[in-house]
Amino acid sequence: MKNVLVAQSGGPTAAINATLAGVAEQAAISGKVDKIYGARHGIKGVLGGQVIDIGERLASPQEMLRLISTPSSALGTCRFKLKSAQEDPESYKLIFETLSRYNIGYFVYIGGNDSMDTVNKLSAYAMEKGLDISVMGAPKTVDNDLYGMDHSPGFGSAAKYIATTFSEIWCDAKVYDYPTITIVETMGRHVGWLCAASALARKTGNAPHLIYLPEIPFEDDKFIEDVKEQASLSAAVVIAISEGIRRANGNYVGEEQAAAKVDAFGHKNMGGAVRVLESLVNHHIGCKVRCIDLSLMQRCSAHLASPIDLFESRTLGALSMRRALEGVSGEVSVINRVGDSPYRIKYSTVPASTIANREKAIPREWINARGNFVTEDVLRYIEPLIGSLDENGRTAELPGFCVL
Amino acid sequence: MKNVLVAQSGGPTAAINATLAGVAEQAAISGKVDKIYGARHGIKGVLGGQVIDIGERLASPQEMLRLISTPSSALGTCRFKLKSAQEDPESYKLIFETLSRYNIGYFVYIGGNDSMDTVNKLSAYAMEKGLDISVMGAPKTVDNDLYGMDHSPGFGSAAKYIATTFSEIWCDAKVYDYPTITIVETMGRHVGWLCAASALARKTGNAPHLIYLPEIPFEDDKFIEDVKEQASLSAAVVIAISEGIRRANGNYVGEEQAAAKVDAFGHKNMGGAVRVLESLVNHHIGCKVRCIDLSLMQRCSAHLASPIDLFESRTLGALSMRRALEGVSGEVSVINRVGDSPYRIKYSTVPASTIANREKAIPREWINARGNFVTEDVLRYIEPLIGSLDENGRTAELPGFCVL
Repeated sequence: MKNVLVAQSGGPTAAINATLAGVAEQAAISGKVDKIYGARHGIKGVLGGQVIDIGERLASPQEMLRLISTPSSALGTCRFKLKSAQEDPESYKLIFETLSRYNIGYFVYIGGNDSMDTVNKLSAYAMEKGLDISVMGAPKTVDNDLYGMDHSPGFGSAAKYIATTFSEIWCDAKVYDYPTITIVETMGRHVGWLCAASALARKTGNAPHLIYLPEIPFEDDKFIEDVKEQASLSAAVVIAISEGIRRANGNYVGEEQAAAKVDAFGHKNMGGAVRVLESLVNHHIGCKVRCIDLSLMQRCSAHLASPIDLFESRTLGALSMRRALEGVSGEVSVINRVGDSPYRIKYSTVPASTIANREKAIPREWINARGNFVTEDVLRYIEPLIGSLDENGRTAELPGFCVL
Repeated sequence: MKNVLVAQSGGPTAAINATLAGVAEQAAISGKVDKIYGARHGIKGVLGGQVIDIGERLASPQEMLRLISTPSSALGTCRFKLKSAQEDPESYKLIFETLSRYNIGYFVYIGGNDSMDTVNKLSAYAMEKGLDISVMGAPKTVDNDLYGMDHSPGFGSAAKYIATTFSEIWCDAKVYDYPTITIVETMGRHVGWLCAASALARKTGNAPHLIYLPEIPFEDDKFIEDVKEQASLSAAVVIAISEGIRRANGNYVGEEQAAAKVDAFGHKNMGGAVRVLESLVNHHIGCKVRCIDLSLMQRCSAHLASPIDLFESRTLGALSMRRALEGVSGEVSVINRVGDSPYRIKYSTVPASTIANREKAIPREWINARGNFVTEDVLRYIEPLIGSLDENGRTAELPGFCVL
């Protein structure tokens, strides 16, 4: 009997361990697997031989349940772009030496864009060399930018955190009787899905009033005009911005800050896009401004994890493992949506090569004409991902507040 | 029959509406109250006559339950320091005109230090003028700095948010195989209770490694030494700091940042203490540093509210209302702790004058000798406030994580 190796890569999410649990569970019930190994720090651990036996620990249902509700990568992670076998034959040699030493027949790699590229390359290399190893991918990323699937595991939980937090920030922001502007920055360097999830908070309150995404070139004048208009309608204005908002020339707004400011030691200081917009509001409007960066909390808040996200993530891990056991290699398990209401999906696998090195942005028609908010399409798309819908079709996972 | 007026003041908390619910509930069952009114924006709303009838809305148990789980002040808030009747007779005239217009016999003011001062002044004024109005206070503040009580309502929920978030940030921070330092800033301008609550996260992980409080003068050299030592023991180091950390001369560390940096328009930019410490680490240590500000989330995250905190807050509202109905005036309902394990409390009322204009800091002996962490006393004190303890005496409200 062969053994299984599993590893995790890229930025943490609240659901990446659910996928690991799905892999371990499927391996355990297969009757075809002897040991379940985990590599520390993704492919770097495979390269360096940092491999641990996790099968025994995860034979405990209690530990499996704890694993599923543990945020971030229980095995550690890395950011590592594997070069081609032509460019870097030594790495391939080391990786397959480790796989051979542990008698690995199935390697499941959980990660984002770069990891799916790794799956593609390792699978092709094994096939070319006639090695009997199935290499399968399982997707994850809070950014939801992975191509070839309806949505990425990990996104639903982060979206739930963002929607919940915006709804609570609105309760906090609206209590004063003088004008305030609150600017909240979400993750999303290249695409605005996480920032767009803030719009769900409008189901329980009035925030956010404006949403700025990397998909739409950012213009100072338009922004000031937008904010002035909202401030004329509401004493408290809440603005959602993506860390990746860019100028028409492609420059990140957040990097202007870095160039303009140095700290007491002369080091550049990355305050983020939120600080640039704070300066704009201070200068052109002048009311009280608060800046909030949702930081790591948006990707590691397991206490707010979406039950749907955890469920799907676990199933995708199980599916990747299942196909590996059937001898499939170089593919990635994905979710395809069949319907929004009721929300229905199908699982399948697609070649890793179709996912790697691409990026899924928000379609232009899902953003309003002015480019400062999202349309109902986005809500219809995201809402089922954050949890169950109640009997009225409303998101049961979002809090409902009393307004006096 | 007389009517009740209730108002909320100061910074939002996740429990301040539970106190409002307690007031309304006790008024409703008293048989002595006709109408329940709320003033918008605290005493400013009483001054300006912004009074609404909330009794009918809150006759719905469903609305009461929603109110209890709604963060921040449902009636709006203010920061307003009422002057003495000698200095500002006009304000007193306006306030008591409003109270008379609405036939108020009982006024309950929910708030912090300044609000208890207001309770004291209004009560003394009413007594002096022979007006038949009981003015009672109900305490709240996330900072836990109120004198004359074991702890302040609102603190337990914020402490739970902070402990939970630090435990999740640890999961996120520890996944990399290179050195990182994560500095997390909590609220607490004058006292360090909120920051100290981060120590609870050590029950489920290794963070925070260091805690810096306003109670201990901050020294750059000692800080750098501390961080270097921790970094030699762990690749990931997580540091909790209070926004109010100060130099020996009393200057806030966070304000040095403001002086040193201006934005593109020449405006001062308050980045907070966390940015000053980031600069220190960048300059003297040089590894990757992350800065996180827990911002408004720590006081408005109702989804993580402590059930104990909500329960106690509601009871304190009920008690203030009850005593007002009995003709008591100028007092504040408080919690006295009878035991830690099992956690037992008694409720009582104390004169508002004994609470106003004072501040309760962390006792020096509850902070370690080096001044960079808290002792077990702090954990024993805070742990019961964030929720129930399980059968092993561990905090059931904190998540338990799987470590592979």
